[in-house]
Amino acid sequence: MSKPSIPKGTRDFSPEEMLRRNYIFDVIKKAFISHGFNQIETPSMENLSTLTGKYGEEGDRLIFKVLNRGDKFLKSLKNLNSEENSQGQMEHQLCAEGLRYDLTVPFARYVVQHQNEINFPFKRFQIQPVWRADRPQKGRYREFYQCDADIIGSNSLTNEISFIQLIDSVFKSLGIKGVTVKVNNRKILSGIAEITGQPEKIIDITGAIDKLDKIGVDLVLEELSNKGLTEESISIIKPLLDIKGGYILIISSLKNILKDSMIGLKGVEELEFVFNYFKSNPLDFVSVQLDMTLARGLNYYTGAIFEVIVDQAKVGSVSGGGRYDDLTGVFGLKDVSGIGISFGADRIYDVMLDQDVFPDFSDISTQLLVINNGEDVNELLRLSNFIRSKGVITELYPDNVKLKKQMKYANGNKIPYVLFVTEENSIYSYELKNMISGEQIILDVDSIIEKLNF
Amino acid sequence: MSKPSIPKGTRDFSPEEMLRRNYIFDVIKKAFISHGFNQIETPSMENLSTLTGKYGEEGDRLIFKVLNRGDKFLKSLKNLNSEENSQGQMEHQLCAEGLRYDLTVPFARYVVQHQNEINFPFKRFQIQPVWRADRPQKGRYREFYQCDADIIGSNSLTNEISFIQLIDSVFKSLGIKGVTVKVNNRKILSGIAEITGQPEKIIDITGAIDKLDKIGVDLVLEELSNKGLTEESISIIKPLLDIKGGYILIISSLKNILKDSMIGLKGVEELEFVFNYFKSNPLDFVSVQLDMTLARGLNYYTGAIFEVIVDQAKVGSVSGGGRYDDLTGVFGLKDVSGIGISFGADRIYDVMLDQDVFPDFSDISTQLLVINNGEDVNELLRLSNFIRSKGVITELYPDNVKLKKQMKYANGNKIPYVLFVTEENSIYSYELKNMISGEQIILDVDSIIEKLNF
Repeated sequence: MSKPSIPKGTRDFSPEEMLRRNYIFDVIKKAFISHGFNQIETPSMENLSTLTGKYGEEGDRLIFKVLNRGDKFLKSLKNLNSEENSQGQMEHQLCAEGLRYDLTVPFARYVVQHQNEINFPFKRFQIQPVWRADRPQKGRYREFYQCDADIIGSNSLTNEISFIQLIDSVFKSLGIKGVTVKVNNRKILSGIAEITGQPEKIIDITGAIDKLDKIGVDLVLEELSNKGLTEESISIIKPLLDIKGGYILIISSLKNILKDSMIGLKGVEELEFVFNYFKSNPLDFVSVQLDMTLARGLNYYTGAIFEVIVDQAKVGSVSGGGRYDDLTGVFGLKDVSGIGISFGADRIYDVMLDQDVFPDFSDISTQLLVINNGEDVNELLRLSNFIRSKGVITELYPDNVKLKKQMKYANGNKIPYVLFVTEENSIYSYELKNMISGEQIILDVDSIIEKLNF
Repeated sequence: MSKPSIPKGTRDFSPEEMLRRNYIFDVIKKAFISHGFNQIETPSMENLSTLTGKYGEEGDRLIFKVLNRGDKFLKSLKNLNSEENSQGQMEHQLCAEGLRYDLTVPFARYVVQHQNEINFPFKRFQIQPVWRADRPQKGRYREFYQCDADIIGSNSLTNEISFIQLIDSVFKSLGIKGVTVKVNNRKILSGIAEITGQPEKIIDITGAIDKLDKIGVDLVLEELSNKGLTEESISIIKPLLDIKGGYILIISSLKNILKDSMIGLKGVEELEFVFNYFKSNPLDFVSVQLDMTLARGLNYYTGAIFEVIVDQAKVGSVSGGGRYDDLTGVFGLKDVSGIGISFGADRIYDVMLDQDVFPDFSDISTQLLVINNGEDVNELLRLSNFIRSKGVITELYPDNVKLKKQMKYANGNKIPYVLFVTEENSIYSYELKNMISGEQIILDVDSIIEKLNF
């Protein structure tokens, strides 16, 4: 029989990995709660009609689809016609449900479906896995967790500030060093497209500007030209790429360049509000930086956008988000503005391993192993249960086997103490061994409990 | 546009439901950890070959199957032949993966796949959703969580005792009243089948005995007769059905009746070991009861079996488990004994609602709403962030809207306090309103923090 395996791009998580992952989820969850977000969960499967058409053509292909069952399967099989139907059409005939691709679309669906039970503005968080049939590669999986928080039903800019404070508190609690929140505003990008006189080129313009960090001014200008931007448009964009300095300088340059674009000036004003706050009220831990070249891929953003990067980290951004003005429109609830953020637990995990900033988890693992040495096993069980009931995580080794094997178990599971119980003339004595120092001392049970509770 | 919906048998969980569900998961998780179990997670999707053939024919039909993608889909479509292939075969041609049906088979697969990294005996727990394409009905869902703990690689009966202690501590922590753990041993059922001389009828015999509580002795005997048990067999089984009394009486009757069955006597001896322990060391909270008619459906059990019931609860058992001697054999690792338990979070949820024993969750929800009344919003943001940094879950209402709307938000979210900030001649004053009593007092910020931290 061949060794069993798991599907490509999926993972088993060992006890050690789970401790680290849970730590990250717990920190993020605690920060969400402290900012007043409420947790919801949505089903792993959504109706395929809820998911398709929301992530572009490529996204639709990457949705895992769940086969119809029973008679419905047989019926859908009959209607299949591979000559006449496209692959997508056949998939939809065979499948009525799909696995969720992100947490944003199910959230929008939730808001519309439960709009009468919701007390707006609705601050929700959600920590659940999502599935994408992407080609697996290092750091990219077919099943991975997203940690999302959103406020929907409020267009106040105080939310933008709160989200940046939330990011600050998450990375402060995790202890990750060298974190920067880059902030931009989609309205500025729209404004730039507008003043070039080629607003229809906005996606090409933002795509090119997005690469400034990587390829430099000259190649950005070349790309703009290749994408069909006129000489005149390029001469308008060029000064933007040359802006250097802090946010005050950038904002005053932008005000000047975008003076003829209402939407552009609105974007500048929104950014100014956010940055002025942090000028008087600096963040505890992370840096915040205005980055005019930040574009973010998702096209539903309409206002502030942000992305969190870590100095010298090999992974890309560890968190990102922004404001959207019409997320729920596609499900029939129009004109509701929202803003959201997503933390990437897998990338945060990798950065924390690299920076070696995970804490010690020994207080949530077994602290004491009672050795099973042939003494009355009922007494050993009773004792183990008693010590455990006093708050010490305690195991009795279940089998009366060679000491060497029991010690190997304690070492393998990094159990810091083992206890030897011996009886003579109906009197029990207890010898506690520190597995790290090797020290052995005879103690009474109360003293053992006291010692291990600290 | 029609209102969006979710697939049949799946659920959205609201913030209120999530608080209750998380509470149950946290209590179970804490009990697992205190007994030395380590958490693992396995992928939602397993290879279909890992899942099929493990749950019987009906089970195979209830596995959700995930459609092949891209070229693989087109290729599998070409090979389909609905005339020659059964439905099951066609499903396997179209799908290489399925959603996990329980946590037990993925656990067995995990143990075999990672056997060289595991330090046996392996004590693992796992809390994840499972999926079954069952017909949805009240209390039965297509996606639901299981909470499983298993010890694999030890056949010591101390494990049986530890698991019953674990059950005791879970229900004690949850505060559910009227809990009984019913215990039996599969070897006794095998022994009974053996002494009838019709051991091949074991499934019919256990199936009939299992119904004693519901249908009474006469109908059990009738069913045995209908299933082809001889008069003689029935005369051997009948005295078993008449045994009444505590465990000591039952055990001595069983020893007598099963005196010619080695396996039967082994089962009695195992039960006796467990019950003798609890005679000297009674459980804190739940009752433990020997129930000879307990059979449990799953056929992989080979030793102790247990099931947890709650007096007057409308749901069935809230937890169950038992010992198995060859769970990993099917994946190529033979002769490894294990014992496991599963807690049913959905049923526990229903029982706790019925008994009204959920705690108050107000300390993990927003405690203070700062009213946005047109005062300098930067000051309100700074204040909110400061109070939050001192451990009080605080929100600033994001928009400067009518007070009525802000109060409605506080009431709707059960926020116990709101804060009015006013400024006069650059001096701020703070008025705290208790939303339950209606009381309003003027306090300084430190006093507000102190008050809300208790």
